[in-house]
Amino acid sequence: MTKNSLITVTFNPMGSKVKVKKGINIFEAAREADVSIRTECGGRGICGKCKIIVSKKNVLSELTEAESIHLSSQEIKSGYRLACQTIFEGDIEVEIPEESRVGAPKILALGLERQTPLNPLVKKFHLKLQKPSLSDVKPDLERLLEALSAIYKVHELEVDCEVLRKLPEILRGANWDVTVTVWDNRRIIDVEPDDTSNKFWGVAVDIGTSKIVGHLVNLATGATIDISSIENPQISYGADIMTRITFAMTSEANLKTLQKIVIDGVNKILAQTFAKAKVNSHQVYEITIVGNTAMHHLFLGIQPKYAALSPYVPVVKSPINVPAKELNIKIDPTGIVRVLPVIAGFVGADAVGDVLATGIHELDELSLLIDIGTNTEIFVGNSDDILSCSCASGPAFEGARVTHGMKAETGAIERVHIEKNFEVEYKTIGNVKPMGICGSAMIDVVAEMFKHGIINREGKFNPQMETPRLKRSNNQREFVVAWKHETLTHKEIIVTQKDIGEIQLAKAAIYAGCSILMKRKNVKRENLDRIFIAGAFGNYINPENAKFIGLVPDVPTKKIKFVGNTAVVGAKMALVSKEASKTAEMLSKKVRYNELAVDPEFNTEFFAAMFIPHKDPSRFPSVSKYFSVIKKT
Amino acid sequence: MTKNSLITVTFNPMGSKVKVKKGINIFEAAREADVSIRTECGGRGICGKCKIIVSKKNVLSELTEAESIHLSSQEIKSGYRLACQTIFEGDIEVEIPEESRVGAPKILALGLERQTPLNPLVKKFHLKLQKPSLSDVKPDLERLLEALSAIYKVHELEVDCEVLRKLPEILRGANWDVTVTVWDNRRIIDVEPDDTSNKFWGVAVDIGTSKIVGHLVNLATGATIDISSIENPQISYGADIMTRITFAMTSEANLKTLQKIVIDGVNKILAQTFAKAKVNSHQVYEITIVGNTAMHHLFLGIQPKYAALSPYVPVVKSPINVPAKELNIKIDPTGIVRVLPVIAGFVGADAVGDVLATGIHELDELSLLIDIGTNTEIFVGNSDDILSCSCASGPAFEGARVTHGMKAETGAIERVHIEKNFEVEYKTIGNVKPMGICGSAMIDVVAEMFKHGIINREGKFNPQMETPRLKRSNNQREFVVAWKHETLTHKEIIVTQKDIGEIQLAKAAIYAGCSILMKRKNVKRENLDRIFIAGAFGNYINPENAKFIGLVPDVPTKKIKFVGNTAVVGAKMALVSKEASKTAEMLSKKVRYNELAVDPEFNTEFFAAMFIPHKDPSRFPSVSKYFSVIKKT
Repeated sequence: MTKNSLITVTFNPMGSKVKVKKGINIFEAAREADVSIRTECGGRGICGKCKIIVSKKNVLSELTEAESIHLSSQEIKSGYRLACQTIFEGDIEVEIPEESRVGAPKILALGLERQTPLNPLVKKFHLKLQKPSLSDVKPDLERLLEALSAIYKVHELEVDCEVLRKLPEILRGANWDVTVTVWDNRRIIDVEPDDTSNKFWGVAVDIGTSKIVGHLVNLATGATIDISSIENPQISYGADIMTRITFAMTSEANLKTLQKIVIDGVNKILAQTFAKAKVNSHQVYEITIVGNTAMHHLFLGIQPKYAALSPYVPVVKSPINVPAKELNIKIDPTGIVRVLPVIAGFVGADAVGDVLATGIHELDELSLLIDIGTNTEIFVGNSDDILSCSCASGPAFEGARVTHGMKAETGAIERVHIEKNFEVEYKTIGNVKPMGICGSAMIDVVAEMFKHGIINREGKFNPQMETPRLKRSNNQREFVVAWKHETLTHKEIIVTQKDIGEIQLAKAAIYAGCSILMKRKNVKRENLDRIFIAGAFGNYINPENAKFIGLVPDVPTKKIKFVGNTAVVGAKMALVSKEASKTAEMLSKKVRYNELAVDPEFNTEFFAAMFIPHKDPSRFPSVSKYFSVIKKT
Repeated sequence: MTKNSLITVTFNPMGSKVKVKKGINIFEAAREADVSIRTECGGRGICGKCKIIVSKKNVLSELTEAESIHLSSQEIKSGYRLACQTIFEGDIEVEIPEESRVGAPKILALGLERQTPLNPLVKKFHLKLQKPSLSDVKPDLERLLEALSAIYKVHELEVDCEVLRKLPEILRGANWDVTVTVWDNRRIIDVEPDDTSNKFWGVAVDIGTSKIVGHLVNLATGATIDISSIENPQISYGADIMTRITFAMTSEANLKTLQKIVIDGVNKILAQTFAKAKVNSHQVYEITIVGNTAMHHLFLGIQPKYAALSPYVPVVKSPINVPAKELNIKIDPTGIVRVLPVIAGFVGADAVGDVLATGIHELDELSLLIDIGTNTEIFVGNSDDILSCSCASGPAFEGARVTHGMKAETGAIERVHIEKNFEVEYKTIGNVKPMGICGSAMIDVVAEMFKHGIINREGKFNPQMETPRLKRSNNQREFVVAWKHETLTHKEIIVTQKDIGEIQLAKAAIYAGCSILMKRKNVKRENLDRIFIAGAFGNYINPENAKFIGLVPDVPTKKIKFVGNTAVVGAKMALVSKEASKTAEMLSKKVRYNELAVDPEFNTEFFAAMFIPHKDPSRFPSVSKYFSVIKKT
């Protein structure tokens, strides 16, 4: 080996290799390999944080004084060295132990079992600064910035004025040993005494029309610490979003009222979750928000009416970052509220969360994603392209406008099975006596009644059917799901002709949306590799029955997956991952939008889908095999 | 000429030339030449704004329909064309008339007769947007951003939440014809109906310890519209800065009080100047602030004590931009308050203004710049390097601590001459009866008394002097400058032994500062090409006398220039020019600082400079010729 030849360093466990000249130390080699090793002194042998393990002792320089101070004899025996003190003369393999890793790929497991590398926009940096003296009169901020730049390689930071105001006292009170919180590599949002680099939290919030859900996340580990939810307090201004928009339209003051109320609601969730988890609100530096476009606008105090009136134009779709103090959100006042981007008028930030959480934009396979709510957002596509639409499916699946409909809460019937003798088996959330029926069970009821000929393809009751469960009351027919003595309310739980009609309207709108979207993207049912159903209308949906009533296209049952509240999962991904945030922004721009209101085929598709499962049975071959059975009964 | 050869376009009046391929239009050629031509449609023949004049008709394409719509027959006769419609086949010269120029080099003339190209950070853009429709549902903000990007080439703008809130109503109310205000090519801070692209203003403010001065500037033209000033209302908390710092040190509430008071003061100036000039505060988008480091910190609510106590470390030196609403400064609430950077503990943003305004950093010649105030900032250097220091010269030149001292206001004696017979000639500001003596006249009095042997080299009165003007009162000697009957107050205006001592202390501190700074930079008196004296202590300083008392080094009189309040001029340059703002930032980093408090030679220099003109006469050869005269008297 000649004097100038290069030697190879391999860094484990990542396996990164780099060829370097002899004479540099391992810390410098790591920098060349783009491998981060922890340090607080920038490689000057002062902090003792850059511990690594090397086995080939014969090619290494002698232990330095700094190493004998910072390494225990046990560590020295095990091959530990300080990277910045160790020069090497031949090829080596370097093991970076967990404690010395920076941004090591910690993993956040999500509900969907997808994984997001932990890389929040909020970062904390511990610093030990030189005290100023008459020969070193660098101002406080510049002292801090230079250290951040030298040690952690974060450059050109802005600083919040509030931080400047407390900076001098904190530096001196902490004897120049402080932790700096930086947002998005561009803004210093906090300075605290001592090493608090592992203490920072964030909250992901889904502002639903009826419910606000918050997930409190430890940003040092990516772990979800607590989940809290409350009813959206705007409900007192109207259960449905159109009533609230109408209220907000009438005056500036009304708009402000709705904004204040939803912000109070978010603050209530925050107070609740911080108390439960014993987290200091001043160490909560970021909150990510998703919601439909109207909620998004109302939360920011922006008039939502133009998104609700033709031609359905939102005021803004880009992501918005606002200092918490400006919105009066009760996290650290210099913390950031990050509102995720929206796609279009009725495809909001919650829909961006849906796509992010299901990852359909990353799959080569073709997915159909349906987030069922009062407005249902539908997506079809894959990593090449995604087309979306929104349809007004109404709140039937969420329990509204259905005689005994209710949300998917304790006491709701969530699954229903009808026997040949028309006896009904059902399962209640919480295994208590039933109070009502939630969306998933409504799908079951309609499907099962159809299977047994209780209703026909038009959804009408068959008056010939001989069973005491089919009754006539108030001049209309109804089917008894649970008898008086079985229920908590001591009243029968029934499904009326009108209820079936509501389900038909809802499922027809959704199926028509799917159908048009698939046509516009030139996708056939056979090409679909997967259908994701998202929403908060049950813990379990029977995919067989969803097909049976014609809610979703007829694909093999194993391709249908119910994924729950994906909107808040998407918000959480953006909270813990800069990359996911960028993806959200990309999705908001790239996901194409098809306005159903101007689609000439929508009405035809909608009316055809009012039938069970559909006016055209050839679209549901797996269901048509039951038709013979149905006709027999 | 072969088919592929390049042809030359010359754009006048700027004289820019560019070689281009045949077949492109003049608008595109201008873009290649980096010449801006006005447009609102981005070169699509819609707006008719890109009018130009070309004479060589034979190489031009035929008139288009768009041109016949937008050009009058008179214009067509005179050779007018639309740049975006005109393709050319040979070399041409294009005249861009005033009306089609963008950012044409309008010039701001400053007090110092230096010129700054007009390029404020605040810019306004007029836009005519397409209305949304069912087939074009782009959100409001994105519609605006795309137009700004396509037409004016400003990309990736942030937007203030307040602007988002008013955006939808303004767009629709103005039928999509609006003007957008952008700050620093990065943030939309206003949207207004119609074309207001010529209506925007800014204010440059110098917060002095005793006076706040504001210059209102029309940012469309660079013209100064009004100058207003008030006493700094903090004066009720102490005339000198140390008293105020001591007050601010004692509690958070006191610090907040001083901040509130100075902000109220700035708001008072603003209200006053807007009323005088009939300017709408909502069209004032920026205010630049200079002040010494203590004023800088107090204005921002930052504790100034560490800059005043050893080791004299400010909290921050970088420029600070704060939304006006955050500081409660009464310009447009989404406007920006820009606080210029400081250099060191006692060399503040006002000093950065001094350098910027005098331009000593641009000269090859060596300059000495002295901004005389309670603290005097001194600079020596040129385009290569500038060294600065600050010395506590006390307020004697500003009229404080001197028996009949006063500010340079109406009624102040500003020049004094003593005849051989000891009679005194003086000139008063405003040519009224005198009330007191301002700084410039104090320099004259001391110099003239010395010339006539009334005081000796130590500044002591010569008791042998036979003149009724030299009197004894309250056990000390004093010299009568104006008799009772001459004055407005009907009291004598006198100069006491103590007064002379104050002037000696002040001038000794300043001269010692100059002397040390020149030594540290290895500059000799003979090498100085220029001495700038800045400050607000008189309208005219007799440079001969300034040398005579030993205030400034002995250089030929023609090299000494009195430049007045350069701090506010520097603030105004930063207001109208992005380049000047960058220069200010560069200066704050590059100007080196010499801490006199730790300079071992300062005390020796200071005591030697207490003599008139100096203990070592060889430093003042031009004065020593008077010594023989002095000895004779």
